[in-house]
Amino acid sequence: MTDDTHKIAAVHAYVDGFARGDADAIAELFADDATVEDPVGTPIKVGKAEILEFYRFSMATGAKLELLGDPRCAGDCVAFPFAVNLEHGGGPMVIAVIDTFRFDQAGKIAEMRAFWGPGNVKSG
Amino acid sequence: MTDDTHKIAAVHAYVDGFARGDADAIAELFADDATVEDPVGTPIKVGKAEILEFYRFSMATGAKLELLGDPRCAGDCVAFPFAVNLEHGGGPMVIAVIDTFRFDQAGKIAEMRAFWGPGNVKSG
Repeated sequence: MTDDTHKIAAVHAYVDGFARGDADAIAELFADDATVEDPVGTPIKVGKAEILEFYRFSMATGAKLELLGDPRCAGDCVAFPFAVNLEHGGGPMVIAVIDTFRFDQAGKIAEMRAFWGPGNVKSG
Repeated sequence: MTDDTHKIAAVHAYVDGFARGDADAIAELFADDATVEDPVGTPIKVGKAEILEFYRFSMATGAKLELLGDPRCAGDCVAFPFAVNLEHGGGPMVIAVIDTFRFDQAGKIAEMRAFWGPGNVKSG
């Protein structure tokens, strides 16, 4: 099992990758056959090429992440609450999100799920 | 799909059930064949009898829940960050947790997963 130090470091690397606008660094955190479901209930991105494209697209909004509490490590997973700060339609927008990562034996993210909906989006 | 209003009401009913120490009310939120994994990575409780027993045991610590942010609704799920406040070994203890609920078509919780680990437990 991936230890908690590694899981928490992955969360911070994820936040830092957004801060630098470095989609490649984010994609490197994932396993080759990883899945990304963002938000939960929408079509799942599968594999590094789709995941890299997804993060490049996400970062095109200038989105930056801000942790809103300690990461919660459990089993082979971590969950963490954060805000996405971005510009949309000429003004600021904040989205409150919870992500979960499941790690594989090699310490790569095998599954990412993002929980957020219309009620978590605040403009202005 | 269960609507967001129902999902958020279920989260508040869950918090309120702990506030009243009412394990039966919590169990009523779950489907008959629901699963509870708390924390993630530990053996899964299956079905209402095991779930009721689990919540009775949890409440024996006097645990009360405090939401630490808005519930995040997505697809047939909701995720929410909260603190568990309880007494342990004669002193206060706070555990930072993230729960996810997945709902069935009838609006009952079909799956609950709780993300927390030793790093999320603060004493004194």
